[in-house]
Amino acid sequence: MLSFESDYIQGAHPAILQRLVETNMEVVSGYGKDPYCDSAKEKIRTACECPDADIWFLVGGTQTNQAVISGMLKTYEGVVAAETGHVNVHEAGAIEYSGHKVLGIPQQDGKIAAEDLEQYLRDFYQDGSYDHMVFPGMVYISHPTEYGTLYTEKELQDISAICRSYKIPLFLDGARLGYGLVSHQTDVTLPMIAKYCDVFYIGGTKVGALCGEAVVFTKNNAPKHFLTIIKQRGALLAKGRLLGIQFDTLFTDNLYMQISRHAIDMAERLKEIIKENGYKFYLESPTNQQFVILENEQLKKLEEQVAVGFWEKADEDHTVVRFATSWATDCQEIEKLRDLFSSGFVKGGLSSR
Amino acid sequence: MLSFESDYIQGAHPAILQRLVETNMEVVSGYGKDPYCDSAKEKIRTACECPDADIWFLVGGTQTNQAVISGMLKTYEGVVAAETGHVNVHEAGAIEYSGHKVLGIPQQDGKIAAEDLEQYLRDFYQDGSYDHMVFPGMVYISHPTEYGTLYTEKELQDISAICRSYKIPLFLDGARLGYGLVSHQTDVTLPMIAKYCDVFYIGGTKVGALCGEAVVFTKNNAPKHFLTIIKQRGALLAKGRLLGIQFDTLFTDNLYMQISRHAIDMAERLKEIIKENGYKFYLESPTNQQFVILENEQLKKLEEQVAVGFWEKADEDHTVVRFATSWATDCQEIEKLRDLFSSGFVKGGLSSR
Amino acid sequence: MLSFESDYIQGAHPAILQRLVETNMEVVSGYGKDPYCDSAKEKIRTACECPDADIWFLVGGTQTNQAVISGMLKTYEGVVAAETGHVNVHEAGAIEYSGHKVLGIPQQDGKIAAEDLEQYLRDFYQDGSYDHMVFPGMVYISHPTEYGTLYTEKELQDISAICRSYKIPLFLDGARLGYGLVSHQTDVTLPMIAKYCDVFYIGGTKVGALCGEAVVFTKNNAPKHFLTIIKQRGALLAKGRLLGIQFDTLFTDNLYMQISRHAIDMAERLKEIIKENGYKFYLESPTNQQFVILENEQLKKLEEQVAVGFWEKADEDHTVVRFATSWATDCQEIEKLRDLFSSGFVKGGLSSR
Amino acid sequence: MLSFESDYIQGAHPAILQRLVETNMEVVSGYGKDPYCDSAKEKIRTACECPDADIWFLVGGTQTNQAVISGMLKTYEGVVAAETGHVNVHEAGAIEYSGHKVLGIPQQDGKIAAEDLEQYLRDFYQDGSYDHMVFPGMVYISHPTEYGTLYTEKELQDISAICRSYKIPLFLDGARLGYGLVSHQTDVTLPMIAKYCDVFYIGGTKVGALCGEAVVFTKNNAPKHFLTIIKQRGALLAKGRLLGIQFDTLFTDNLYMQISRHAIDMAERLKEIIKENGYKFYLESPTNQQFVILENEQLKKLEEQVAVGFWEKADEDHTVVRFATSWATDCQEIEKLRDLFSSGFVKGGLSSR
Repeated sequence: MLSFESDYIQGAHPAILQRLVETNMEVVSGYGKDPYCDSAKEKIRTACECPDADIWFLVGGTQTNQAVISGMLKTYEGVVAAETGHVNVHEAGAIEYSGHKVLGIPQQDGKIAAEDLEQYLRDFYQDGSYDHMVFPGMVYISHPTEYGTLYTEKELQDISAICRSYKIPLFLDGARLGYGLVSHQTDVTLPMIAKYCDVFYIGGTKVGALCGEAVVFTKNNAPKHFLTIIKQRGALLAKGRLLGIQFDTLFTDNLYMQISRHAIDMAERLKEIIKENGYKFYLESPTNQQFVILENEQLKKLEEQVAVGFWEKADEDHTVVRFATSWATDCQEIEKLRDLFSSGFVKGGLSSR
Repeated sequence: MLSFESDYIQGAHPAILQRLVETNMEVVSGYGKDPYCDSAKEKIRTACECPDADIWFLVGGTQTNQAVISGMLKTYEGVVAAETGHVNVHEAGAIEYSGHKVLGIPQQDGKIAAEDLEQYLRDFYQDGSYDHMVFPGMVYISHPTEYGTLYTEKELQDISAICRSYKIPLFLDGARLGYGLVSHQTDVTLPMIAKYCDVFYIGGTKVGALCGEAVVFTKNNAPKHFLTIIKQRGALLAKGRLLGIQFDTLFTDNLYMQISRHAIDMAERLKEIIKENGYKFYLESPTNQQFVILENEQLKKLEEQVAVGFWEKADEDHTVVRFATSWATDCQEIEKLRDLFSSGFVKGGLSSR
Repeated sequence: MLSFESDYIQGAHPAILQRLVETNMEVVSGYGKDPYCDSAKEKIRTACECPDADIWFLVGGTQTNQAVISGMLKTYEGVVAAETGHVNVHEAGAIEYSGHKVLGIPQQDGKIAAEDLEQYLRDFYQDGSYDHMVFPGMVYISHPTEYGTLYTEKELQDISAICRSYKIPLFLDGARLGYGLVSHQTDVTLPMIAKYCDVFYIGGTKVGALCGEAVVFTKNNAPKHFLTIIKQRGALLAKGRLLGIQFDTLFTDNLYMQISRHAIDMAERLKEIIKENGYKFYLESPTNQQFVILENEQLKKLEEQVAVGFWEKADEDHTVVRFATSWATDCQEIEKLRDLFSSGFVKGGLSSR
Repeated sequence: MLSFESDYIQGAHPAILQRLVETNMEVVSGYGKDPYCDSAKEKIRTACECPDADIWFLVGGTQTNQAVISGMLKTYEGVVAAETGHVNVHEAGAIEYSGHKVLGIPQQDGKIAAEDLEQYLRDFYQDGSYDHMVFPGMVYISHPTEYGTLYTEKELQDISAICRSYKIPLFLDGARLGYGLVSHQTDVTLPMIAKYCDVFYIGGTKVGALCGEAVVFTKNNAPKHFLTIIKQRGALLAKGRLLGIQFDTLFTDNLYMQISRHAIDMAERLKEIIKENGYKFYLESPTNQQFVILENEQLKKLEEQVAVGFWEKADEDHTVVRFATSWATDCQEIEKLRDLFSSGFVKGGLSSR
């Protein structure tokens, strides 16, 4: 059985496990006060060209979004996000659970446009009863988005400028950041993200770690007592070393970028194969997630031999599925998929939407 | 200066004040355990033809929505509402503050369609990752809506049937319920509302009371320990008599309906005048709120002599304003408005959108 | 039946009702933006000798505590209060519902001692793991306390000084403030309270109003967007005039103090009668609430003719009950109580504890 | 430098790391739907003799307490716990952050007495205004407690019986459960805990895992949609295998008990050494945490060569410190400590309290 179900179906990059084994019996303090956390932070600061960044390690993405957003907002503020944003749809209401509204705005392929953001903010303050409404207190974007798409530097810059003119922070969810940074179709670098965002996180879980996300406050703007905020949300790891060692490894010798690149190479090959076989993409994605429209019958057949992620129904007869590659994708598996397609097993691709 | 700014610009119906004065020095228990609350509840049960209804008095609308919704939902549930619903837009995030997401769905003139609701619920449970999403745990509608529009009996019945098939309660926000019940264009009665809804409230604040809303749990389905739930949300009045006496008066000799009818009569006359003068309605409202599109210049002129409610910008040159009548609207004021319009003071009506 | 059950068993002072009637048909804006609120605020500023005070009107005590405390605290902070404080015991967890811990400290007759407060704060910051604990972010005291007792000026001053040295605000719950200010045994005035506290509220509900509490931020320190904070907690009254008119009346011609004085006079007479008849006080209260220890048999007998408030069981055979006077207490009722006691109906007083 | 600072200063038991390495490249589903989670659950059910137990894996202790407590309580309920309970003191208000009060009751050495619990519950329902108070909705105990002490079977049984008579669940926090189960002074087994408690968790983080706690709902009583509840609190791990593999290893060949036993053996030897050298215990602990009272001067000297945990100040001149052993404690380190003490380096032990 082949699997392109997601980018979290395998363990950790072997270099990480090796470091965990090597350092296992060393005695270090808990709660993130260990030398591995310190070292990882220093390496991330260097990679971001952001020497004063304040960096924290958390365990997972939803947790990170919840801690950062609820830690930075005032009670009367909400977070502006794409209608399709992960915080708005797939976090089981974690933001609302912390008391804050997600203020959904229009999106295109998972991205918000600077103009739409500006209009939203301008309209808000022109509304006669805006003090009966939730104040926009932060802007959340994901990069890559939930649809695998990427912002350009210009787009980031524009969004950032609007946030600054309204004095609200820009937060970038980088659950799959590595795959975005090494995409063949991006002009955005890690230092740019550190420059344009007030806070962002570098995803570990989906990019080679067992778990872990590194939150980077780029303007020395971490909320006061952020450790206590993390603890209060149940997100503080006693053995903080688990996160420190993983990120220290990922940011040694450029490993994070290098393994991300493998995933992108695999995704590009996958795209070729899908195109060659005439299947239709739901949208054009330059990263490790590829969304394909299949006839329900094709999907049924495919699933006998290949695990893919169900995304959504396209219409009565078609389904959107996700093929994901990762740092761990085996190139032989990709070729097996090609063989499968060309064998006619799934039937000729001619989906339309 | 004439004022059609809102339906809460004057005090209470004089009969209410008179009862407050008459009963003022009587000694009764606090927290709603007084004979006036009991009597008011009994009269409301009769008016609703719902002898087993469990009834509670709260102070204001947002408070009532917050207490009912957060009191009935499980932590992992949200409330489905029109995108334009009061709970979604104009309650400063009170529902999210209580930990729950408002799940906005499409609307037309403030109303949700049974089909859209059904599709939303069906799609939810067909989504492969619905357990990572907020469960729809209740449906909220307002009647009249925020735009003054009304559901028909058939529409209520259909929405109710969908809620029952999905086993989630239907909650009707009746902040202006009186004005809906006596509209010239409605086939919906109070007993019908009690029949189709699991819980609803009868608005007092905007229909003749100083403050107060009566929540009716129609199926003996008030959350356990609802008094404590109310107290915990800061919504329990020590002198509960203030609410009991008001509702007892409003539901004596049909006063609630009678004063609502006056508001509707005034609104109908207002509509005639607006039409006669060629102004354009933003939408057709059968209740006490009338939304009119004015040229910005017209509005500027009008506001020199008439207070109206700003609603929203229609476009660069036009604005939507609200004219509201109430139980207290003076018919002479309406005629003064007519004189003003016909005097050409505001300039001929020829707005378009 | 005589009743000393509480100080909220009757309506409002007649002067308030009269003003409500007189102003009833006047057209004013909603949500506290009316001339009566403005006028009431100005009079309160004068009474407090605090010309820059920022003043807000809310409906009830628990609501006020919840809005003020949750509006001022950071998420990682709690409020320090006497173990017996109203916020800690009798508000159904309203503070915790808003996400904050009440940090209970020892008390004597409802009061906290400056020394105990200081020790609590000092110990907190000396604890090696204080960043795993709830930060003390505010101090809450009630005056009069839940037991009717009062702080002296010196005590207030000391507590205030500690708060300032730790840079946390001091909040005084004055649900029954009037009765404290005119007690025969106090040296504390309203301007002193404004001076020593960062925020406090002047209770209306229990001192002559139908409902309403006036929150005074004494140092121009209201949380930003406090109107939205109030709205979000369901605590914003559409007809704000109801609160404005009441407080405007209470602070005209010294009415608030004058009617409080009546309650204290009645309480002093009540104390004499209770003493004369040999009943024992649970504690010495200088305000309108008197706590008396009765044998259960005596209580049973008493309750046939007099309503009192159950407070707590003293032991198997004795109960603590509360006799409350108010602005509305009839002096003839007090004398009837005396007659009842001296008739031997309740049996001779000889409770012990 | 020797370290007895805590039981989370080293990584994971080597067998765990080995299994992580062995299974690393296997493809499994995320979010706990993998065969290792299934297998671990089955082994835990067997160890608990509780074939129907519903088992969930979470990452850390505070997170687990928050998810279980907030997932099971109604909004108007709080959790009863020892004043010294971890949820009441050292979780940064995580329970209150989720909206619930921790109802502290008296304790002795970290334990609550059945009598005190019963009295608390009885008094609550006898209070005339209990519907203005937080309802006790659950009882929380820790075993071992925060002071290393243990309940006897009889004590657990009595507490359990009270909970059942009041129809509220009993929740046992077993962050260090292993060390309790193999103590030389316990009569409590894992099946007993499953029998007496409605829910409990088996701590992994402090007993050999990198992270992870296994929550056991013993009566098929997990809250509905608990996965969504976990997700909403940011506590759902994408790579659930990380927890499944660890617990599967810990519950294979009795590893969990075996490594716990080592920690207890080390603790018993440590106790001997401390006693031999005349130091005074703060209390008698039968588990892996030993609390010792040192003169401040002694402590200062000791800390030059040995890391211990600061617990609290005993008085001006003395400090309580914690010595913790774990599955990873090296017996040579214990003997080095003995040498250090007997060398007179720390000065003769003669602390008093």
